[in-house]
Amino acid sequence: MAEQQENVVYVGNKPPMNYVLAAITQLNSGAQQVAIKARGRAISRAVDVAEIVRRRFVPDAQIKDVKIFTEELQNEEGGKVNVSCIEIYLARQ
Amino acid sequence: MAEQQENVVYVGNKPPMNYVLAAITQLNSGAQQVAIKARGRAISRAVDVAEIVRRRFVPDAQIKDVKIFTEELQNEEGGKVNVSCIEIYLARQ
Repeated sequence: MAEQQENVVYVGNKPPMNYVLAAITQLNSGAQQVAIKARGRAISRAVDVAEIVRRRFVPDAQIKDVKIFTEELQNEEGGKVNVSCIEIYLARQ
Repeated sequence: MAEQQENVVYVGNKPPMNYVLAAITQLNSGAQQVAIKARGRAISRAVDVAEIVRRRFVPDAQIKDVKIFTEELQNEEGGKVNVSCIEIYLARQ
């Protein structure tokens, strides 16, 4: 079933509206839920994206859950770096 | 009762460790819970602060809840600006 697939928008360094559009497209093509994910400095932008989608474009969408956690990444010298992550779950009512 | 008071750390543009220290101090002076709050670009830093406190300094603390929302602020010209906000609730077990 299509609903079982996870619909994800990865937020990076592009303008927020790019990701807003991606999330709206997913929600308007049958997805009941979309996960907006980001790491590091893009976390603030991910919150903006979720809020813009919910407030301006998809009024029946709600923040269902917000998860924060840390990922351990390998840097170029082979060392480890901890990066904060966020996952925001937006769901239609 | 002291526990009824809300213990808050407002995260701004200083280095994360300043806020980490503030949160640890509150948790170590009897607070069962501390709210880490931020707006706009400081949101990413607030997530870093919560994760550093939890992972490195207060292992029995857990992310209890994460709220995201939008605040309408007045800018200098009297216009309105929407700013994304986060509140992260860290609680001792």
